[in-house]
Amino acid sequence: MADVRPNLSSDHHSVTTGPISGSRKVHHTTESGLKVPFRRIELSNGEHLDVYDTSGAYTDDDVQVDVHSGLHRLRAGWTDGREHRTQLGWAKAGVVTREMEFIAAREGVSPEFVRDEVASGRAVIPANRCHPESEPMIIGKNFLVKVNANIGNSAVTSSVEEEVEKMVWATRWGADTVMDLSTGKRIHETREQILRNSPVPIGTVPIYQALEKVNGDPEKLTWEIYRDTVIEQCEQGVDYMTVHAGVLLRYVPLTAQRVTGIVSRGGSIMAAWCLAHHRESFLYTHFSELCEILRDYDVTFSLGDGLRPGSIADANDRAQFAELETLGELTHIARDMDVQVMIEGPGHVPMHKIVENVKLEEELCGEAPFYTLGPLTTDIAPAYDHITSGIGAAVIAQAGTAMLCYVTPKEHLGLPNRDDVKVGVITYKIAAHAADLAKGHPRAQDWDDALSKARFEFRWNDQFNLSLDPDTARAYHDETLPAEPAKTAHFCSMCGPKFCSMKITQDVRKYAEERGLTSVEAIEAGMREKSDEFSESGGKVYLPVVG
Amino acid sequence: MADVRPNLSSDHHSVTTGPISGSRKVHHTTESGLKVPFRRIELSNGEHLDVYDTSGAYTDDDVQVDVHSGLHRLRAGWTDGREHRTQLGWAKAGVVTREMEFIAAREGVSPEFVRDEVASGRAVIPANRCHPESEPMIIGKNFLVKVNANIGNSAVTSSVEEEVEKMVWATRWGADTVMDLSTGKRIHETREQILRNSPVPIGTVPIYQALEKVNGDPEKLTWEIYRDTVIEQCEQGVDYMTVHAGVLLRYVPLTAQRVTGIVSRGGSIMAAWCLAHHRESFLYTHFSELCEILRDYDVTFSLGDGLRPGSIADANDRAQFAELETLGELTHIARDMDVQVMIEGPGHVPMHKIVENVKLEEELCGEAPFYTLGPLTTDIAPAYDHITSGIGAAVIAQAGTAMLCYVTPKEHLGLPNRDDVKVGVITYKIAAHAADLAKGHPRAQDWDDALSKARFEFRWNDQFNLSLDPDTARAYHDETLPAEPAKTAHFCSMCGPKFCSMKITQDVRKYAEERGLTSVEAIEAGMREKSDEFSESGGKVYLPVVG
Repeated sequence: MADVRPNLSSDHHSVTTGPISGSRKVHHTTESGLKVPFRRIELSNGEHLDVYDTSGAYTDDDVQVDVHSGLHRLRAGWTDGREHRTQLGWAKAGVVTREMEFIAAREGVSPEFVRDEVASGRAVIPANRCHPESEPMIIGKNFLVKVNANIGNSAVTSSVEEEVEKMVWATRWGADTVMDLSTGKRIHETREQILRNSPVPIGTVPIYQALEKVNGDPEKLTWEIYRDTVIEQCEQGVDYMTVHAGVLLRYVPLTAQRVTGIVSRGGSIMAAWCLAHHRESFLYTHFSELCEILRDYDVTFSLGDGLRPGSIADANDRAQFAELETLGELTHIARDMDVQVMIEGPGHVPMHKIVENVKLEEELCGEAPFYTLGPLTTDIAPAYDHITSGIGAAVIAQAGTAMLCYVTPKEHLGLPNRDDVKVGVITYKIAAHAADLAKGHPRAQDWDDALSKARFEFRWNDQFNLSLDPDTARAYHDETLPAEPAKTAHFCSMCGPKFCSMKITQDVRKYAEERGLTSVEAIEAGMREKSDEFSESGGKVYLPVVG
Repeated sequence: MADVRPNLSSDHHSVTTGPISGSRKVHHTTESGLKVPFRRIELSNGEHLDVYDTSGAYTDDDVQVDVHSGLHRLRAGWTDGREHRTQLGWAKAGVVTREMEFIAAREGVSPEFVRDEVASGRAVIPANRCHPESEPMIIGKNFLVKVNANIGNSAVTSSVEEEVEKMVWATRWGADTVMDLSTGKRIHETREQILRNSPVPIGTVPIYQALEKVNGDPEKLTWEIYRDTVIEQCEQGVDYMTVHAGVLLRYVPLTAQRVTGIVSRGGSIMAAWCLAHHRESFLYTHFSELCEILRDYDVTFSLGDGLRPGSIADANDRAQFAELETLGELTHIARDMDVQVMIEGPGHVPMHKIVENVKLEEELCGEAPFYTLGPLTTDIAPAYDHITSGIGAAVIAQAGTAMLCYVTPKEHLGLPNRDDVKVGVITYKIAAHAADLAKGHPRAQDWDDALSKARFEFRWNDQFNLSLDPDTARAYHDETLPAEPAKTAHFCSMCGPKFCSMKITQDVRKYAEERGLTSVEAIEAGMREKSDEFSESGGKVYLPVVG
């Protein structure tokens, strides 16, 4: 089997390249000739499974990467003749764009379905015309659930090269979008490097950079400084931006009684500004100008939940839902201007309060794609918040959330390193896929069935290669049974060679075939006979005792 | 702050002892003088939180442990005068036993409530009178959700000492019961060591040892060999036993069409026996004799789901639910004989099919406590099945499952080591607690609130000590900000010193207090004014644009 070791050179200017172990890149060609990438997992029985691939050119066989020249500009030229229309604008006009055609092939649906979901606002295609390196993808509840990975340095740690590698690493393991949340030095250069090398849409929170420009003093922020920062980021190619325009002056006191107040950085910046000036947020009062800017580049709004709960105690409170109402108001303004919108959601929410968040968001925001952070379903497990939130992420995605923002094991404790990023992404791919299965996505279960079949037939290497993380699955198996023969052995270390449940199960099939019990109907006919026989024998054995 | 390092000596005869970092053992005394252990987490603000403690004497300050002499026999003498009654028998007779009194204090409910739940069969107290070392605990949907950890060696790996340490280690991190699933050599000695040193109930699957006695050939099994094995284990003090008495000959062919056939070891052993002899399972035909044996020791049945699905594809199929129907039949037989019963559940189930399992189990088995393995919500992530199943565990526990059998990262790949056991237990404590919150357990949220308050007030050490795994939380924090001063700093590495959302939030409270906005009513009155003002100013700013 293929076992390509990724290049993990620690040279600061290199990134991880090479196919994922046991997979190779293939392309499906659309009617008009667009080449859509998939990751092909070749199986030892001659079959194969093609799965959705977010990793870009970095996992091609013959990849030559130079982070300084950046990726191939896939979408260069695609935008000709629509400088002044967004994907939403074209969809409303009934036009199927190349992005929609590409996405249809990726998701296994018709281009017209993609167009209609975008036109309705139920789905967004974050694709800034200044970010031609990105491969088109869609975020909406009627498509595969997506996962975002946050990266970014802060004043106290990490370098530009590290952040680019984190982006490549996150998309290698399945991140559908990446947010650069840098707050420290060199924000512009870091973002430039990430954008030029990213095969997925990049999101940002412009207020962070604006705050750097006023030396971290929220009071000194102005609409002009913010607007210029947004334009700077639009020009660079940022695909979606978090805007906390729903934090209104009159909502701020609602957080005073909370256990954890305001925990969103953007939310607290705007709250601080509103209080200092005792005026309404400039993000709200200048919202329509913001729409005009984003429309020119087809940048998608990610309306931020600046008043999201920071603890179980604060979940679903008046501050949170008051802001959501305002986000709904802003959603309709943006849409009317052909600007795409998604809505950010919590945070920290106990399981029984999760579904209400989705229902309210859909009702207030016209089914705009919901994009949630977790939510964490308990606060008592720092160092395991990828898991406390992975549970909430699966539940909220099943209820209709379109994209999940990952949480790493370092949440609340520190900045994630490379390993934390991988664990966070894999955990969230699990939550997203569990929801795809629950929502009955047409092709989701094929993957589970392929792996289960491999497991049942003791095709160990197929089982490893079909897993979300082949390297770790193989390593864990080898800890107890390292020998290569063990990978074809008809037993595993759980039961040992002498006895294995799956081995015994083979006899059941033989038994059923010998008796012609090859359909459920035939089996149940057989069962009825048996149970008649039985009621005159063993079936009564214990009756005297209890009777 | 207390920072007691556990004894991790690798001496084969030692086990991990000493308090969990930042905690110490305290005892609450009941009316009749029983001393009930709790783990007290002392906080830097003078407050403290007492949490449920499963770890036994191993976490006492002044513990002296000798695994060869075993633990103090806490319950010695408690059973006087009721040799011939089980907890269920006494409960039906309206008697509150010492075990019930002890449990009431542990769970924070009345002894009568405990008695009534046991009498109804909705809860069980697994407490073999031959296992006096165990601290009484209860399993039922109206109590805290419990977690079981599986340990045990197989023919290919691990030693007796390792298994005892795994039990101590699992209970240290919160396992409420432990199952010894040894299938290899020295089953009896391994179990003896575990029982004499275990503060929690121990479960087994007697068919595994019976199979060893016939050299692993299922055909050679007989009722007599099985019965003698069960008596041997009852005498040793096993508290509950998995019995796959629902695998009937006529159900076996129903698994022939499955993707993964029969994956339960016990289930496949009995299926193999039924097929080889073309006779009904001796576990079923001799069930009433089995009830008489278990009743004599007050051993609890854990009726096994031998036909549970082994993949997403096989979930909720006819084989699984046919067996569940038979388990319901057997539940009522056992209860009529005063034998306590719980029911084992799947396995592998997609999220949208989970709740049906609980509803059916409660209906068919008279609300007997449901005890489920996960379930895994997808098959595509071997090496992360603690997470794929942690999601399912939280969902099924919220729906009413009383105890969750943990899954470790090594599931499907190998046997768990010490670290895997810890990760599995912590993951399942998260799932159980998330469900306790969702079910509104009276004291569950106190823990979340205490940690969130510590987080908001930058009491870093309190935050670490209140977490399920203080050592790992502290270590992750120290990776980015190792200095001791950082643990009192009013910022963290996520935002850096220059700016912090929680710092800004302090100003919000000042603002609200200055304006007398100290109640939600006052705040909303203030909001109405503001919004009136606002509609004549900023509120209209964007209207001309969209109008």
